[in-house]
Amino acid sequence: MNFTSDNAGPAHPSVIEALARANDGHVPGYGADDLSNRVRDRIRDLFEAPDAAVELVATGTAANSLALATLCQPVQTVFCTPDAHIHEDECNAPEFFTGGAKLTLVPGGDVMDPAALRTAIEGEGTRGVHGAQRGPVSITQITERGNLYPLETVRALCDVAKSFGLPVHLDGARFANAAVALNASPAEMTWRAGVDVAVFGGTKNGLLGVEAVIFFDPAKHWEFQLRRKRGGHLFSKFRYLAAQMDANLENGLWRELAATANARAADLAAGLSGVARVSGTPRGNMLFAELPRGVHIRLRAAGAQYYVWDGEEHGNGPVTARLVCGWSTPASDVARFIEIAASA
Amino acid sequence: MNFTSDNAGPAHPSVIEALARANDGHVPGYGADDLSNRVRDRIRDLFEAPDAAVELVATGTAANSLALATLCQPVQTVFCTPDAHIHEDECNAPEFFTGGAKLTLVPGGDVMDPAALRTAIEGEGTRGVHGAQRGPVSITQITERGNLYPLETVRALCDVAKSFGLPVHLDGARFANAAVALNASPAEMTWRAGVDVAVFGGTKNGLLGVEAVIFFDPAKHWEFQLRRKRGGHLFSKFRYLAAQMDANLENGLWRELAATANARAADLAAGLSGVARVSGTPRGNMLFAELPRGVHIRLRAAGAQYYVWDGEEHGNGPVTARLVCGWSTPASDVARFIEIAASA
Amino acid sequence: MNFTSDNAGPAHPSVIEALARANDGHVPGYGADDLSNRVRDRIRDLFEAPDAAVELVATGTAANSLALATLCQPVQTVFCTPDAHIHEDECNAPEFFTGGAKLTLVPGGDVMDPAALRTAIEGEGTRGVHGAQRGPVSITQITERGNLYPLETVRALCDVAKSFGLPVHLDGARFANAAVALNASPAEMTWRAGVDVAVFGGTKNGLLGVEAVIFFDPAKHWEFQLRRKRGGHLFSKFRYLAAQMDANLENGLWRELAATANARAADLAAGLSGVARVSGTPRGNMLFAELPRGVHIRLRAAGAQYYVWDGEEHGNGPVTARLVCGWSTPASDVARFIEIAASA
Amino acid sequence: MNFTSDNAGPAHPSVIEALARANDGHVPGYGADDLSNRVRDRIRDLFEAPDAAVELVATGTAANSLALATLCQPVQTVFCTPDAHIHEDECNAPEFFTGGAKLTLVPGGDVMDPAALRTAIEGEGTRGVHGAQRGPVSITQITERGNLYPLETVRALCDVAKSFGLPVHLDGARFANAAVALNASPAEMTWRAGVDVAVFGGTKNGLLGVEAVIFFDPAKHWEFQLRRKRGGHLFSKFRYLAAQMDANLENGLWRELAATANARAADLAAGLSGVARVSGTPRGNMLFAELPRGVHIRLRAAGAQYYVWDGEEHGNGPVTARLVCGWSTPASDVARFIEIAASA
Repeated sequence: MNFTSDNAGPAHPSVIEALARANDGHVPGYGADDLSNRVRDRIRDLFEAPDAAVELVATGTAANSLALATLCQPVQTVFCTPDAHIHEDECNAPEFFTGGAKLTLVPGGDVMDPAALRTAIEGEGTRGVHGAQRGPVSITQITERGNLYPLETVRALCDVAKSFGLPVHLDGARFANAAVALNASPAEMTWRAGVDVAVFGGTKNGLLGVEAVIFFDPAKHWEFQLRRKRGGHLFSKFRYLAAQMDANLENGLWRELAATANARAADLAAGLSGVARVSGTPRGNMLFAELPRGVHIRLRAAGAQYYVWDGEEHGNGPVTARLVCGWSTPASDVARFIEIAASA
Repeated sequence: MNFTSDNAGPAHPSVIEALARANDGHVPGYGADDLSNRVRDRIRDLFEAPDAAVELVATGTAANSLALATLCQPVQTVFCTPDAHIHEDECNAPEFFTGGAKLTLVPGGDVMDPAALRTAIEGEGTRGVHGAQRGPVSITQITERGNLYPLETVRALCDVAKSFGLPVHLDGARFANAAVALNASPAEMTWRAGVDVAVFGGTKNGLLGVEAVIFFDPAKHWEFQLRRKRGGHLFSKFRYLAAQMDANLENGLWRELAATANARAADLAAGLSGVARVSGTPRGNMLFAELPRGVHIRLRAAGAQYYVWDGEEHGNGPVTARLVCGWSTPASDVARFIEIAASA
Repeated sequence: MNFTSDNAGPAHPSVIEALARANDGHVPGYGADDLSNRVRDRIRDLFEAPDAAVELVATGTAANSLALATLCQPVQTVFCTPDAHIHEDECNAPEFFTGGAKLTLVPGGDVMDPAALRTAIEGEGTRGVHGAQRGPVSITQITERGNLYPLETVRALCDVAKSFGLPVHLDGARFANAAVALNASPAEMTWRAGVDVAVFGGTKNGLLGVEAVIFFDPAKHWEFQLRRKRGGHLFSKFRYLAAQMDANLENGLWRELAATANARAADLAAGLSGVARVSGTPRGNMLFAELPRGVHIRLRAAGAQYYVWDGEEHGNGPVTARLVCGWSTPASDVARFIEIAASA
Repeated sequence: MNFTSDNAGPAHPSVIEALARANDGHVPGYGADDLSNRVRDRIRDLFEAPDAAVELVATGTAANSLALATLCQPVQTVFCTPDAHIHEDECNAPEFFTGGAKLTLVPGGDVMDPAALRTAIEGEGTRGVHGAQRGPVSITQITERGNLYPLETVRALCDVAKSFGLPVHLDGARFANAAVALNASPAEMTWRAGVDVAVFGGTKNGLLGVEAVIFFDPAKHWEFQLRRKRGGHLFSKFRYLAAQMDANLENGLWRELAATANARAADLAAGLSGVARVSGTPRGNMLFAELPRGVHIRLRAAGAQYYVWDGEEHGNGPVTARLVCGWSTPASDVARFIEIAASA
């Protein structure tokens, strides 16, 4: 019963099989091989963006930081939410890769509010040369708290950004979960809404470690490639990144895996509704449940794994547990978790 | 007949098998799983360094840059050769990760000369606060030109560095090839000779993409981990790096693969001796051969792949070809290459 | 009637005289001259810190950024208020000089609350390698909103910082105004309260452009000097910085100038009390006054200069004016400003 | 008898007078005052560049580093000579301000050779994404070894740079000495020859500390201003930089001071010709003289001050002394130096 993270489970078997298939013969390095070229084409097709610049990296932090650094000058500030992964969980990587840009935390929750964004942007860049200059807007779909941005909110945020001439970055570590939940196409979720660069995450969705970075303005391609190399993120044996992504795209595997993960989370939320306060209705693969102390103790005793987001692991009162499902979360684990919780 | 690079060939099948085996169940992320712990222990055993800090990253540029950044202050300069990978082939990654340190090119060839190093160090750091301060010494074993540092040279270089209080970094992208060629133990090649941090490369020796970074002073461990995360180089699904390295270490596979690669290069050199001027006797897996124009044309016509290091791909006069062998280079390719060359 | 800033007025005549006196003969550069040495000694005496490392730079941004960079690792975050000059008015200089550290804005006003600081520190550094690490605490005395930290608050903040092992930086761009207002000694205001590095500002208090940076731990001296040089902030003709500071220290000129500035501000506040809402009782040289629209219009018509901090320069409703006095603010300007305001 | 550096002597009295004159009344800060505007106009006039972006900073390291950073991407390399101040004497400031660019040392002496530059440029940027990309060319007029670039050499170097699409930076710490020696106009020395950004140094020529940075492409203005602020190099009381430069420009003072300095150096060289080997004929204000040991001892005994560039201060054999004259070097010091040397 491991609900700690979508990085705890295994890769999908077909990904390993794809690695094995790719592991044959001599091919050019650094992404110049046929498989890598094919994968880039497939992503362009998927995003209905024939001119987009598409590249692969191995970690989400690299994807976000390199994408932002390509859009953001060192004197600027990036607008994001207080919960943003780029703020909370990247150990200053965005600051490092941008050469010292700032992050401005737009007040509010994990789903950025267009009006709050407008106010935040208006609050920066008003001091001439003295203050940080306005830079990119960064949003996370689905958010770090498991919530979805409706497409109209994405469009509204992009409209605000554009009205100030600012580019928009979409952290899509859980892009697939969002696409399934929204029943939206990658194009609708990104460039059609006004997004300038999107991260199409694979790692959390069943790969070993691959994220695609997609610039809808191909003029950024060369700079991104240089920054990737300078960051030590250009794989010499690139085919092994490409093979993973290729498997991910094959027959819509990425949607299938995300659909399973989302369904598990929905089942979990439904089952817990009587015994725990679940914040909102999860539409992705992550939920936060307030567990009474007794339920928490019982679950731990049964070996359930999850992060305590609020409250004390050992102590009194309820805890808020973050519960993340993946494609490999067994339905039986979900059932057992619910059963233990309910019996408490 | 692909002799372009040791990143052109496939991974060893047992590495893919190890990935498949590791692909089971839920485990902690970010290197806290049992397999990752075991692999760190195995590397400590291999290096006879029970206290060493050992971490894995996925690329050689990351390994070198993060290791150097942990040793080098931004106001310092790194001493390396003009051929060093960190100077020639990392797109300013060392400068980036160190926060703007300089590289001082020690005059001479690819095998750094201890007397030249002493002179170079004496030439820096003499201007008080005005000039770059003296920083780490970085050497590559085997070098980017395919040459070996005899252990006594490594010791002599470390002695020079130590006499100035400077640490030593060893870029071991081809560590395995060197270990086989020198018939030396990892401990002899590194900390017993005075090396402070070593990169034990796996990527060029049959893995998909894994390098171990070993600090013999464990006090550097935490800083390195923070820098790795900040650089986007901490894998969430760390087990897939560990599994590769585990396979590499199993039954001395790493030595076996390197021995094969070295043997192929030796055969190639021997076979070419009548028709091309091979610079030195290769003891690793890389050689540079001056091919007469006719030989070059014939080889290309037959589909031979290699980099032209000097001379013109299309033009007149001889070319110097870089020829790299890997564990997967077929003996038949070597024989055919020689045959074609000889028949020209 | 210029109340825009303490950088708008002239330097004290004795400072120009000191420059003229220093402008004689050949002396060593880069701060190795007798006058520079003497000034460093005088500052050590003033701060009752015989071992302190003392250096001069020409701007406040340089002083703050270099001081923080010497205390702060790139993976850390600096704790400051949302109003802090280092956050609002230095165009990402702290981020630049630290190599990409973050600033954490401690909620609350311009006078940091010790309890809020504790909560903020507890909220960072809890994510292991993933989040920003805890770094220095930075406070401004007097604040950017013209308020004073009582010494017991400084001590309480330092105690909080120390309880986490964190160093404390004091931005003293208006140190002199604070010293006069608190009637406190420089030692009491800094190291006796637990401050690790203080900026003793001269620019806003009647010099052309000089700030002293004082590290009470002399072990930081060399690193600071290297960072200063690397930042382009080491003056070759250092005597001209030293001469200004020497004049500042002569016969307590610095206190005298600040006392005048503070007195002007107090007079201004008292005089405005009937016609404007002055936020708090100013004890330094800066106040914020809410001016009814009619008063604002009348003052502008009379040529009064000040920044509109809140409200619209041209529009409706009241404006909040920032009013800054300096040593050179004529008492007659204060009187006239009050008179115009009152007559409205 | 102080020949150590052009930063050892005093400022010209008229500069102090200008400071005193400027020290009157309240004016806008940060360079928005009338005097600062006038000075920028005067420099544009002097350089016959009505559209140029002109800004002032206080140190040469700041001027060079900020100018280069505005022209150079972090993945690029700057081409300069091994003697360049930016390489030897700025403690990695160019690397810092550019965000980690590299410096490529063009082989040869202190006067860069156009053919050597071409070869150096051709040698970089040939490795695609792997190596440093080609960046600006930086030359120093007059050089750190006291030599002049003939205008045709500047033009030839700029032509080489332009043929690769690279911009040219001119470090003019001793621009005035060069202008006098070449009898050339600032325009001829810079943009007419193809220079993109020039530093017009005042510090070494009789100011307290001011350098003008002139971008002939005004599109760089805003970025430079932001970088200057971020670097802590924007003076709040800007008028005191402007006043110095204003005095410098008044009635061609800058030329007059440089002419005196150059004449002193010429006299010194002529007088030493019998007793020391002077390298080349100095045309600027700096010479290098090989002094026999006895002469060196005798000069030191008489209190002569200079840097020993080669050889041992205390030891055997000759020493190479660097001898720098300034506008304030007394003719009597020159005569006495020669007399002592000759009498040895």
